[in-house]
Amino acid sequence: MSFAGLPARAVVVAGLLVMSQAHADEGMWTLNDFPSDKVAKAYGFKPDQAWLDHVRLSSVRLAQGCSGSFVSKDGLIQTNHHCARECIEQLSSAEKNFTETGFYAKTLAEEPKCPEMEVNQLVAISDVTGRVHKATAGKEGAALADALKAEKAGIAQECSGSDQAIRCDVVELYHGGVFNLYKYRRFQDVRLVFAPETEIAFFGGDPDNFEFPRYDLDVSYVRVYDQDRPLDTSATHFPYASADAKEGDLTFVSGHPGTTARLYTLAQLEFLRDVVLPDTLFLRSELRGTLIEFSTKGPEQERIATDMLFGTENGLKALKGQLAALVDPKIIAEKTKAENALRRAVNADPKLKAAYAGAWGGIRTALDGFRDRRTRFVMTEGGQGFRSTLFRTALELVRHADESGKPDQTRLKEYTDANFPALRQSITSTAPVYPELEKLTLAFSLRKLREALGPDDLFVRKVLAGKSPVERAAELIDNSHLADIELRRRLVDSDATALTDANDSMIAFARLIDEDFRTERANYEATVEAPLTKFSGQIAEASFKILGRATYPDATFTLRLSYGAVKGFRQRGQDIPPFTTLGGAFDRATGSDPFRLPASWISAKDSLNLAQPFDFVATNDIIGGNSGSPMINKAGEIIGLIFDGNSQSLGGEFGYDGSVNRAVAVSVGALKESLAKTYHADRLVTELAQ
Amino acid sequence: MSFAGLPARAVVVAGLLVMSQAHADEGMWTLNDFPSDKVAKAYGFKPDQAWLDHVRLSSVRLAQGCSGSFVSKDGLIQTNHHCARECIEQLSSAEKNFTETGFYAKTLAEEPKCPEMEVNQLVAISDVTGRVHKATAGKEGAALADALKAEKAGIAQECSGSDQAIRCDVVELYHGGVFNLYKYRRFQDVRLVFAPETEIAFFGGDPDNFEFPRYDLDVSYVRVYDQDRPLDTSATHFPYASADAKEGDLTFVSGHPGTTARLYTLAQLEFLRDVVLPDTLFLRSELRGTLIEFSTKGPEQERIATDMLFGTENGLKALKGQLAALVDPKIIAEKTKAENALRRAVNADPKLKAAYAGAWGGIRTALDGFRDRRTRFVMTEGGQGFRSTLFRTALELVRHADESGKPDQTRLKEYTDANFPALRQSITSTAPVYPELEKLTLAFSLRKLREALGPDDLFVRKVLAGKSPVERAAELIDNSHLADIELRRRLVDSDATALTDANDSMIAFARLIDEDFRTERANYEATVEAPLTKFSGQIAEASFKILGRATYPDATFTLRLSYGAVKGFRQRGQDIPPFTTLGGAFDRATGSDPFRLPASWISAKDSLNLAQPFDFVATNDIIGGNSGSPMINKAGEIIGLIFDGNSQSLGGEFGYDGSVNRAVAVSVGALKESLAKTYHADRLVTELAQ
Repeated sequence: MSFAGLPARAVVVAGLLVMSQAHADEGMWTLNDFPSDKVAKAYGFKPDQAWLDHVRLSSVRLAQGCSGSFVSKDGLIQTNHHCARECIEQLSSAEKNFTETGFYAKTLAEEPKCPEMEVNQLVAISDVTGRVHKATAGKEGAALADALKAEKAGIAQECSGSDQAIRCDVVELYHGGVFNLYKYRRFQDVRLVFAPETEIAFFGGDPDNFEFPRYDLDVSYVRVYDQDRPLDTSATHFPYASADAKEGDLTFVSGHPGTTARLYTLAQLEFLRDVVLPDTLFLRSELRGTLIEFSTKGPEQERIATDMLFGTENGLKALKGQLAALVDPKIIAEKTKAENALRRAVNADPKLKAAYAGAWGGIRTALDGFRDRRTRFVMTEGGQGFRSTLFRTALELVRHADESGKPDQTRLKEYTDANFPALRQSITSTAPVYPELEKLTLAFSLRKLREALGPDDLFVRKVLAGKSPVERAAELIDNSHLADIELRRRLVDSDATALTDANDSMIAFARLIDEDFRTERANYEATVEAPLTKFSGQIAEASFKILGRATYPDATFTLRLSYGAVKGFRQRGQDIPPFTTLGGAFDRATGSDPFRLPASWISAKDSLNLAQPFDFVATNDIIGGNSGSPMINKAGEIIGLIFDGNSQSLGGEFGYDGSVNRAVAVSVGALKESLAKTYHADRLVTELAQ
Repeated sequence: MSFAGLPARAVVVAGLLVMSQAHADEGMWTLNDFPSDKVAKAYGFKPDQAWLDHVRLSSVRLAQGCSGSFVSKDGLIQTNHHCARECIEQLSSAEKNFTETGFYAKTLAEEPKCPEMEVNQLVAISDVTGRVHKATAGKEGAALADALKAEKAGIAQECSGSDQAIRCDVVELYHGGVFNLYKYRRFQDVRLVFAPETEIAFFGGDPDNFEFPRYDLDVSYVRVYDQDRPLDTSATHFPYASADAKEGDLTFVSGHPGTTARLYTLAQLEFLRDVVLPDTLFLRSELRGTLIEFSTKGPEQERIATDMLFGTENGLKALKGQLAALVDPKIIAEKTKAENALRRAVNADPKLKAAYAGAWGGIRTALDGFRDRRTRFVMTEGGQGFRSTLFRTALELVRHADESGKPDQTRLKEYTDANFPALRQSITSTAPVYPELEKLTLAFSLRKLREALGPDDLFVRKVLAGKSPVERAAELIDNSHLADIELRRRLVDSDATALTDANDSMIAFARLIDEDFRTERANYEATVEAPLTKFSGQIAEASFKILGRATYPDATFTLRLSYGAVKGFRQRGQDIPPFTTLGGAFDRATGSDPFRLPASWISAKDSLNLAQPFDFVATNDIIGGNSGSPMINKAGEIIGLIFDGNSQSLGGEFGYDGSVNRAVAVSVGALKESLAKTYHADRLVTELAQ
């Protein structure tokens, strides 16, 4: 991880660069603050407003955590296999396992609806910093938290009105230094078009995850429907380029990086390193062992657990990379230096000192205070103690009934009118619920709850009611009828009385403990979230005043554009070329899991161009959430599909090192070659060629 | 964790107390350097040499990792249930599960032999520091490692000669500052006499482990036989006291604390915190999840996995406590201060500076160099990548065949003539081998190996041979015949040719990779172990010269004596009294795992004195390895049986805080009451009363 380079005002404040200055191809830039001049200087191409607007409208967010883009005039979206994986699994059954066999709808009529997918297209960005700051000025603790929530809900409500096809989010940039209103078109009718087999989408499995060289066809296609017809995207899509990119070519990636912590203070990094990451990693490691062993019980168990296992393993590898970056003394040392420099500059100016000098201490105090109580928050409102779809649904029903009687601006934010479409989709999802898996994860998490808070804790006693975690989970799952979709549809608009009448174990359980959850959430919002927003915002303001707004905000799962070039890197003493080939996949296959190619590939081998580039890397600065992002050239054509970063990019949570950080993509040529020759997906091939 | 107190020479070197001065009841003292004066001053009783000798000879070490003591004139040993658990499980079968039902031999003839238990009785301690220092003077790296190994083996060989009933270990005290020769009588004929049900031995299970208040009857009795007759211990045992101890009473604990890191340097603590502990905890967490889920496959799976699960969970809780102690900035800050003070004192004296000033940097350099290679070492020679009894046996056979042809002093240390009895016991153990569990743990660990080193690593490729971890584990286990005890007995003295002729998959596999293991071990010994011994020894010498030998050495799984008093403590704002009662166990029982009392207890309830003290705490300074230690009064009578420390004692790895660190024991009265009234173990009751 290198943070070298020259700060904007090196004369004034040496050592500030972590806070101040993007470096080489670094940066996850917002679409309304893109450094076109910098790109022009480095690569000789200057994106203009029309180009940026087209990129914005052709890119989409998959609301559950991924990115994608329109790639035809008929609402066709290209994203990753692993981004549609949950949909593919939900559409599968013990008899038809599309995660194993792949899926291809030969006609429009055969495209099935994904039960829980929501697509967002960003139509406008506006600044609301002044409004938010005015509403929160001078407030602290719970009053600050309430004011922040109310103002954000009010702004969102004004923006979307009662139009459920519009989604408006107030986004905190620079951790509270800037508030922007993001207005989206919201699509919930999203249907599956094509997915390859997991064996090739995730060839190499967990061992190859976050690695390069790589040989994955991690693609799926879904289609957005509007009023039961394919959405017209004739003016807002990226066509497929006719040829693959070449080494050195300029590349743009437009997508939704989830979170980064590059602007965190030292206290926040230490809290991550010492508390959050170890704790999370222990729990996930144990869950991983549980799921792998559960999967050996039979093919059906393997099928229903795979999506959760992949997610768990992916998170483990990413978070282990973060921890490794933080225990390397370098990042902490650089941060300390930069932070001290900024604090010195603040202290040197009496006005700045009065306004901002307490911010760093304020953050440390808030986190120190949270240390002891964090476990309880994470286990309750954080969800770690109650992993169960039925429980989540029950809690949503109970809260919806309670919250809908309150004024919109005082509700828990997921229960505002503006957020109701997402809630309805979650509650009435047609995704199957597997009691065996529910029992597994609920028993697991109840055990972790008991472990974290102790068997004598009053809340734990209330939750377990004298039973063991296994017994209690079984009892709750067996006596709940919420797996029944019709029942959920009926209950989604029910009041508290109707819910009581439903006489459901899980609804009763959710009601029993909701107050405890709410207590932890209120405490967290008032003593951690609100102070952090306030103090981080102050630090951002101080930085703007001293250094100007020279850098991009930390990632917030909102649309960002990064630029870079196709380029290899050096790893363990070897030069790694930027491209792999289709032939390389055959060389790497051992026939054993997870290095087994699907039958379709083996039988297509002779017809494939084995020299065709398969996956490749570029210097674009991306992170988790960017999965499914389009990689485009300056003509706005798809040259690749982002699906990963290399292991060296895992420290990207805290900074970008252009010498080794790499984004990993499937090349457009590999997409076309395999669709045509391996899958004979002619309808799709034709649509993409238009 | 408090390290407050006054150093011996506070005038000279302030802040040195961590290295220098035991505090309150702190200390795991060697039997030849016990601070009797201090005890006399604090508690008015001064142990004399005869008293100490009697304690030494009445205490025993269970070589696989526990402590115990003779408690009758006929070789009867009292230890923990969890210390004999492996034996109990090995003597069980699917039909007779003694871990569940408990075990009681009504007659001497019914006492079955534990397949792998070795008992050591410490008969003499002598100093060999001069010899070792002379043999290693001026050497470095591999030469140093070889000289150290050869001299230790030579000393041990001289001590035991060819008498296999004598075991001699050269013990590194103060991490190399002092070398002592410990001479033991070795007993391998150890038979099971009594064990209660796991439900009461481990009542509260993992949730209550390392906690107090507590309600566990964590006891078992085994008997040492000599030439097929009970060993005569008429002069060397602790009789049971007639009454329980009372609050404030002086208590001694004589046992074998495993390891502590109180004298570690800052670099060593950071290495533990940043590398060793996270890494170990991730792996164990995953193994825990695997074993718990495996146990749900059926009662037999539960039975065969339980011992490993308990061990894994116990380790997890202990290591998590260590990590929590190290990420608390206090310990690191105190260590930094103390280390800086000692280094200043060294630097202030030209002679000391020349001899010792480089030691701290030397340790840091060795550990920095090990960072990258540690994973490979841990996975190979450290055993983490190859968890399988059959593999361990195969490797022992292969190495024994190779090593026995070499001069004794150049062999790997486990293969010297002096260590052959332990090796033979391991190879020819009659403990059952469970192929299903073998496959589980071997597949698990091969997967971790691949994850740690990557699928492209040449060693990993050699190990997996193109198969998946599951396939490879199955193939190796299925094609090995080493589960056959007769075969192992036949092969234990075979040469390499005979081993090849055995045509066994696991032997071939061990031979295939032994060289890779040896390479890692040799590198570790030369670049880590030997430099650490050298530099730590230098630091100890410097400390002796500046401060005198005022403190005890770190724990080394050798006999130590601690003193203290029966005393409660404060926890989460509450005063915790030192004693629980038998009645408390009935109050705490929920009927659900792990808070379920066995049927024997429920039916005995009316006959039991429910006010009888059950478990209790004292301030004695102990740690893992002390399990099974006798707690005695000044009359040398058993007043309790150590089985745990409280959670506050987990940071005891790095220091002792007398205000909250507590040792947890079963009271002698509870042992007698339950043997008589719950178990009607009349033969045992009579023997203990004699």
